Amino acid sequence: MTERSTHLQLGSCDYPEHVPADRWATYARQQRELGLTFVRLAEFAWSRMEPRPGEYDWAWLDRAVEAYHAEGLRVVMCTPTATPPAWLIRAHPEILPYDAQGRVRDFGSRRHYDFASPVYREHSRRITRAVAERYGQHPAVVGWQTDNEFACHGTGRSYGGASAAAFPEWLRQKYGTLDALNEAWGNVFWSMEYSDWGQIRPPVLTVTEPNPSHILDYYRFSSDLIRDFQAEQVAILRELSPGRFVTHNFMIFESGFDHYEVARGLDFATWDNYPTGMLEFFAPSGTGEDVKTRYARTGHPDLIAFNHDLYRGVLGGRNGLGREGAGTPNGPWVMEQECGPVNWAPYNAQPAPGAVQLWTAQAWAHGADVVSYFRWRAATMAQEVMHSGLLGHDEQPTRGYEEVAALDLGQFPVGPVPARVALLHDYESLWLYDAQPHSASMSYWAQTVAYYSALRSLGVDVDVVSADADLSGYAVVVAPAITLMTPERAQRWADAVQGGTRLVCGPRTAFRTPSGQTWAEGQFGPLSSLVGAHLRQYDSLRPGLEDAVSGGYSARFWAESYRLEGAQATHTYRGGPLDGEPAVIRHGNVTVIGAHSEALIRDVLRGVLEEAGVPTTDLPEGVRLSHRAGVTLVQNWTGQPVEWQGRTLAPVSFEVIAGA
Amino acid sequence: MTERSTHLQLGSCDYPEHVPADRWATYARQQRELGLTFVRLAEFAWSRMEPRPGEYDWAWLDRAVEAYHAEGLRVVMCTPTATPPAWLIRAHPEILPYDAQGRVRDFGSRRHYDFASPVYREHSRRITRAVAERYGQHPAVVGWQTDNEFACHGTGRSYGGASAAAFPEWLRQKYGTLDALNEAWGNVFWSMEYSDWGQIRPPVLTVTEPNPSHILDYYRFSSDLIRDFQAEQVAILRELSPGRFVTHNFMIFESGFDHYEVARGLDFATWDNYPTGMLEFFAPSGTGEDVKTRYARTGHPDLIAFNHDLYRGVLGGRNGLGREGAGTPNGPWVMEQECGPVNWAPYNAQPAPGAVQLWTAQAWAHGADVVSYFRWRAATMAQEVMHSGLLGHDEQPTRGYEEVAALDLGQFPVGPVPARVALLHDYESLWLYDAQPHSASMSYWAQTVAYYSALRSLGVDVDVVSADADLSGYAVVVAPAITLMTPERAQRWADAVQGGTRLVCGPRTAFRTPSGQTWAEGQFGPLSSLVGAHLRQYDSLRPGLEDAVSGGYSARFWAESYRLEGAQATHTYRGGPLDGEPAVIRHGNVTVIGAHSEALIRDVLRGVLEEAGVPTTDLPEGVRLSHRAGVTLVQNWTGQPVEWQGRTLAPVSFEVIAGA
Amino acid sequence: MTERSTHLQLGSCDYPEHVPADRWATYARQQRELGLTFVRLAEFAWSRMEPRPGEYDWAWLDRAVEAYHAEGLRVVMCTPTATPPAWLIRAHPEILPYDAQGRVRDFGSRRHYDFASPVYREHSRRITRAVAERYGQHPAVVGWQTDNEFACHGTGRSYGGASAAAFPEWLRQKYGTLDALNEAWGNVFWSMEYSDWGQIRPPVLTVTEPNPSHILDYYRFSSDLIRDFQAEQVAILRELSPGRFVTHNFMIFESGFDHYEVARGLDFATWDNYPTGMLEFFAPSGTGEDVKTRYARTGHPDLIAFNHDLYRGVLGGRNGLGREGAGTPNGPWVMEQECGPVNWAPYNAQPAPGAVQLWTAQAWAHGADVVSYFRWRAATMAQEVMHSGLLGHDEQPTRGYEEVAALDLGQFPVGPVPARVALLHDYESLWLYDAQPHSASMSYWAQTVAYYSALRSLGVDVDVVSADADLSGYAVVVAPAITLMTPERAQRWADAVQGGTRLVCGPRTAFRTPSGQTWAEGQFGPLSSLVGAHLRQYDSLRPGLEDAVSGGYSARFWAESYRLEGAQATHTYRGGPLDGEPAVIRHGNVTVIGAHSEALIRDVLRGVLEEAGVPTTDLPEGVRLSHRAGVTLVQNWTGQPVEWQGRTLAPVSFEVIAGA
Repeated sequence: MTERSTHLQLGSCDYPEHVPADRWATYARQQRELGLTFVRLAEFAWSRMEPRPGEYDWAWLDRAVEAYHAEGLRVVMCTPTATPPAWLIRAHPEILPYDAQGRVRDFGSRRHYDFASPVYREHSRRITRAVAERYGQHPAVVGWQTDNEFACHGTGRSYGGASAAAFPEWLRQKYGTLDALNEAWGNVFWSMEYSDWGQIRPPVLTVTEPNPSHILDYYRFSSDLIRDFQAEQVAILRELSPGRFVTHNFMIFESGFDHYEVARGLDFATWDNYPTGMLEFFAPSGTGEDVKTRYARTGHPDLIAFNHDLYRGVLGGRNGLGREGAGTPNGPWVMEQECGPVNWAPYNAQPAPGAVQLWTAQAWAHGADVVSYFRWRAATMAQEVMHSGLLGHDEQPTRGYEEVAALDLGQFPVGPVPARVALLHDYESLWLYDAQPHSASMSYWAQTVAYYSALRSLGVDVDVVSADADLSGYAVVVAPAITLMTPERAQRWADAVQGGTRLVCGPRTAFRTPSGQTWAEGQFGPLSSLVGAHLRQYDSLRPGLEDAVSGGYSARFWAESYRLEGAQATHTYRGGPLDGEPAVIRHGNVTVIGAHSEALIRDVLRGVLEEAGVPTTDLPEGVRLSHRAGVTLVQNWTGQPVEWQGRTLAPVSFEVIAGA
Repeated sequence: MTERSTHLQLGSCDYPEHVPADRWATYARQQRELGLTFVRLAEFAWSRMEPRPGEYDWAWLDRAVEAYHAEGLRVVMCTPTATPPAWLIRAHPEILPYDAQGRVRDFGSRRHYDFASPVYREHSRRITRAVAERYGQHPAVVGWQTDNEFACHGTGRSYGGASAAAFPEWLRQKYGTLDALNEAWGNVFWSMEYSDWGQIRPPVLTVTEPNPSHILDYYRFSSDLIRDFQAEQVAILRELSPGRFVTHNFMIFESGFDHYEVARGLDFATWDNYPTGMLEFFAPSGTGEDVKTRYARTGHPDLIAFNHDLYRGVLGGRNGLGREGAGTPNGPWVMEQECGPVNWAPYNAQPAPGAVQLWTAQAWAHGADVVSYFRWRAATMAQEVMHSGLLGHDEQPTRGYEEVAALDLGQFPVGPVPARVALLHDYESLWLYDAQPHSASMSYWAQTVAYYSALRSLGVDVDVVSADADLSGYAVVVAPAITLMTPERAQRWADAVQGGTRLVCGPRTAFRTPSGQTWAEGQFGPLSSLVGAHLRQYDSLRPGLEDAVSGGYSARFWAESYRLEGAQATHTYRGGPLDGEPAVIRHGNVTVIGAHSEALIRDVLRGVLEEAGVPTTDLPEGVRLSHRAGVTLVQNWTGQPVEWQGRTLAPVSFEVIAGA
Repeated sequence: MTERSTHLQLGSCDYPEHVPADRWATYARQQRELGLTFVRLAEFAWSRMEPRPGEYDWAWLDRAVEAYHAEGLRVVMCTPTATPPAWLIRAHPEILPYDAQGRVRDFGSRRHYDFASPVYREHSRRITRAVAERYGQHPAVVGWQTDNEFACHGTGRSYGGASAAAFPEWLRQKYGTLDALNEAWGNVFWSMEYSDWGQIRPPVLTVTEPNPSHILDYYRFSSDLIRDFQAEQVAILRELSPGRFVTHNFMIFESGFDHYEVARGLDFATWDNYPTGMLEFFAPSGTGEDVKTRYARTGHPDLIAFNHDLYRGVLGGRNGLGREGAGTPNGPWVMEQECGPVNWAPYNAQPAPGAVQLWTAQAWAHGADVVSYFRWRAATMAQEVMHSGLLGHDEQPTRGYEEVAALDLGQFPVGPVPARVALLHDYESLWLYDAQPHSASMSYWAQTVAYYSALRSLGVDVDVVSADADLSGYAVVVAPAITLMTPERAQRWADAVQGGTRLVCGPRTAFRTPSGQTWAEGQFGPLSSLVGAHLRQYDSLRPGLEDAVSGGYSARFWAESYRLEGAQATHTYRGGPLDGEPAVIRHGNVTVIGAHSEALIRDVLRGVLEEAGVPTTDLPEGVRLSHRAGVTLVQNWTGQPVEWQGRTLAPVSFEVIAGA
């Protein structure tokens, strides 16, 4: 076991099976020379580990591991379960998942399995056990990654086959009686009541949209399958590979399962950070194409930072302390870090000069202890031919390689991220929000990121934590879009407010019951007394239609107003159907912002932060601050030099300065 | 039986099964106090009426009906056939319909049935008989609604299963021999000739587009299924519920069946009026997003008015006189009237202050005797959680409620709509037009509404009637898009013109034979002598490409020219491929407008109306006039005050003024 | 046999089975009077030739052929295999093809067959033999068209059924061992390795995108099926109809098979030229809607010309010499020439006055010996009711007819097209490029046409030839997008350069190996020594993001840079991630243009052409020159008069002037 590093460490994802064996020693040496410490191996190698049923071939992997070990690289070994081989699939086609159109999703790429398939689960345990037995105690192996990117390509849910068969029993376990289920779902609505568990199917291919409660439970069921699958993997690895960490590489803004549930039992979370591709799909709502063009070569800082902060907190803020696998970094990691163009977006631009360094520095400043680049050498075959690596197809160093080589890791000390603000996140709220968005320009992520981005534009560090997390110690808690409310959650929030924390909520907060209905008393249900108000009206705004708010603001896409029951209005609507009604309300230390306006959100948050003693700094467009371990990372994400506080920040660059 | 009212009455749609039983008496009282007279019940309640096969439960509904009856409300009872319960569907999955992609449409929402399914039909007769036996002579029950919104969610046609099985026999009945069918469809075209009835399937999943004649007959067949289904329902209700009216709630611009056929046997038609949602889907062609934004809070007056006028005339102008169900309003009704935001459009804005009153007044002025709001209380569960009601989720009165409470019904006398202009409508023409539109910016509805809107902008009342209706007595008949011509129809039009009626036709009139081919002599086929011309050329115009017309007009999207054979050109094309050819022609009292230009249509219509002695008034944008029972409803649909004829019309408002 | 004509000849496509028999003699006479020499018959007439299994009916066709023969028209007879009749399909549903969504594509239009179906192949041989026996030696019949528009409506590939079943055996024949296949496809990438031939299926419905090598081989396999089908047809026709030509009517920019393979064995190629419809689908990339509007009535000259030049060269430049079927034109033909609006585009405008003449003249100037209009009379039934003909529905001459009547054919001498420039084309490169375009604004056709259009804007004649064609004799060879490189191809190009030919390559040239991987040494693989460079970086550019290039150019959509190994940079990038790197390189007589910029492409090509002694002329927008048989066709494709070299070119017009 190696000592824990005092600063950021680096690694890469390598695939010895993709290149001739005579390249392995060279690559290992080059990686060491570049300053890489970690290498991830064998992620998709099932067909090479087990070319035919039960016939294992470890010779090649033994030799590859030895090659890296010889250069002192520490190996993150993978369970290859994301790619069950052809012989398994064709022998057991019932492993294949179904899409939402009722079609079987076929072999020929990856992730072609239904988590509910007993035969797949059995074979996954078997191959995991086999690889763990072989390498679990190898001195080079310091940790494990399970599978790869759960739910990628919409594989978080299968809509037929094994999943469809298992769903009724999951419901029976949850509800006990059909009366309870029918009541929870409100199935009386359109005579959708069930009289036999076997009548219930996945919520797809219905004549018009399915019941959102049906959707919610199907998503919970599917998430539980992933949780259980992961737990099986982790248990085997714990047994056969003691003292090593176990993690999984999660994805950008993935909505396909409850990450808080699935991450349980891991040592820390890692995620795969592809800033340029991400921007094409998740550009802030309503910003149009110009933002995508402006940040095409760097990605948008807040989209990236949000994911860093989310995965740093996905294990409940434990930050890896006390976990197994001591001697390795506490995490979180970036397991796959873009180091050149990706291949999967509509457009795949070259990163700006400096972007790979900026991404690495930002990852560190948001808590990453290791950044591992994807991938060592660009693949010369198959689906990802157009994806870059640290080496090109021709084994020449790329610009990404050169930027990594030029990094001074000593300027990135490990240590805590000193966030005094928590932003609450909840997958069930996400699922419900997006099941009935009511405004084509709004979504859970759009609303959540709008609040997150406002905080970052004020130079504030943020922990993204579960809506059910322990909130003690936070000066300010922001709940942008927690639309599902439970009595327990409401009580926990009230306790935090009681303890002195300031709470800021966005629209649609506490609109839903735990089963996906609305509260018969209306929003905010069990949170009403804390908020001191009930919902009065909501207004879904098409582009071009806005609701004016006092103070010169203008709500777009969404506006809601309140009936005051103790709270006071700090802003009201001006004109239109909400004229004179409260747009922002305040009840003690609780604020609710009903109008979706980026300027309003920022101004209200600034006021609350100042009250709470959290310092704020109005940052120019594209400039961001992040703090860690007593130092500050100043970032310029724009392509132009920026004058800021007496400094000239070069285009696409960072500076580490003393002080937080 | 109650006396017939002298003025507009109101009602609401209520769902006692959606709320605790202890709310029923309160709701009934509140409805009475609000001035509502009618309540519609049990629309989707099959699973509560018959929780298990053959096991009826009427206790809850008995009690609910009594609660409304106790407050003097008159009940419109529904047959619950739009929502066959899970036990029926899972026992008889052959009931489920197929979509145009060949997929079974599953249980889990509503309308999950194929009208051709014998087992569904049998169970529908059974449940209808059961509910009619129970409530058919109940003193509170004054009428019936069959099913709900036939064809909603694309359920007017099923493309497999029972419908596919029944189609060949329908064809055999129609054509007698395959030679006749092959000839009628022109199947020789691509060797599509059939040699056995069993070879014929629904017109879907063909390699390229199917034969339009194949489509036309499939649509006729599907429409006949709905007609027959409805007739079965009506017969049972007539038998078991004498003296009550029977109606159905039709939909906005629904194209899925021939409403003239399906409405036969009803006492009057009702329809479901959702102005804001409608606008998102049916904004006038080519107007772009700005019209949607401008009218986002009111809907567009002409889109709404068109549907009022269509459903007023769908029973052939009988206007309910002499029908059964005496003592109740003659109809038509608005069975479901939006009273707040809907939930099913991409954006679902709050109505403007005054909009609910304006919609109610417009409905009255276009012939409605009852306006029934959807729904009493917003649902707290399932698919329509985001839809509004007169009460909110929290049972608080909404703005819609308040506007209803403030209505003075005495200003809305019942009586005739004095239209001297008929606009012709034909579902078969609609199907053929849209099967081969030839210009992506044109459709049957777009062309038809363009003519309708021109008439309304001139302050003219319009009856929308079947292309085969009795036209005697009309000063002007407008046929915007009657592309299918039969010799009988041509003769009827000629007779009307002979009788002094002026006829104005739009492009593509009489382009098609009854089987969906073109006339071998070319357009206008059997109408040619009346028109005094044949078609010469048609021009499909992409946005930005226009054909100039003499007088300063410009055709967009579509232009056609004529070969004169008695007619005279009043306007000709200027430049382009139609240069010098007739754009508008006149043959006695018959005018054909070949160029699609809103300004040209309006000017030609104004001229013809003036000749016919129908007074016209050039109205400002958003101002409309409607006449009924000797008074005039002046409407301002814009968000600004409008000066008009010495009056200041407040934003989103109406005035009832004496005189027609 | 008739003598070969000294000038362009005309024909039309006629369908006697679509009209009453009493029209045939009239039509034949009218065709002769119009100056038509050829008539194509019986294209889709299988159900009339064989109304029931094995029961032939030739009487009607005998009579029709006699009618045309009587007027001296020469008949092109068709094999009716594009439309297998209902009795065959319903008896053998396994003939039906599958779409990429896994659905069976049903009977009811045309091309509803899988080329791999043994039963379809058997029946196709049978009907072809029957029609060839009947008419193969008829004096009126001068040639044959096989089937119709192979691959139209996406029928070049079937993704299930017979094709899926045949694919493994095709692979086994190609690769011999699964190890070889797994290696060629790089299946190790995601454990996609196969251990049994039967495990392999078509590359569809995979969880995420399939392996491009899998796609490439499926496309090759599907193309081979069409090649074999065609070869069977040709063999039967050669046997039974000696001395007649055999051809096929290919389509605009069709990508569904390798035309060089499928055209083998034909006497010459023909194609179907629909300029206005084509423009809606194939407008030059990035030009937006304005180009579509500007050329809506003529189509874009270069899109049309490219197809002429492609099909002229598809038989390897033989230009028909030495082929069978002497006495008829050597070809190529336009088998179907638009003569009025089409019906299959989103918009279907009337051609401009003069357009039919201009298209005819352009076809001639690009090598056509016969132009045959589609169709004689517009169909009055079925799918193509809205498509025009030389006669309208009403048998009246259309504007197209009038333009044909006014043509002076004597001004169009037959003879060679004197191209000194070859543009290379390759279907495998097309498939690979479009399988992984990496930039949503780029495609193989877009890139290829950009180079072609630059050449035409310089007044240069072009042969479009196979990337493996004999290049000797060409002054300049342009390879816009030949991304697949074989050692043999590289050698052939090197030989041409060695022989004095100048070579200009576009980006992505030689990026791929023959199995669809990249070269382990990187682009340009085996072409590297000729080019004197390797690829350094590529940059995929979203709209609005551009890379500046020295000389004032700006790359959009795509830019790539090079590592020089003997070549010299003539242009370099300025700023951005490629700053200072070569954008255009020169190595002796080889030039590579890495930046996609129309202005840069044009300027570089002009320079190379001038060096090579190929004269260039900078033409105004919409003006084009084409040369044939010693004369020059000057064309004005704009709607305005153009002053050019002392002439005033009328709108949409041409002039034939002496000299080349």
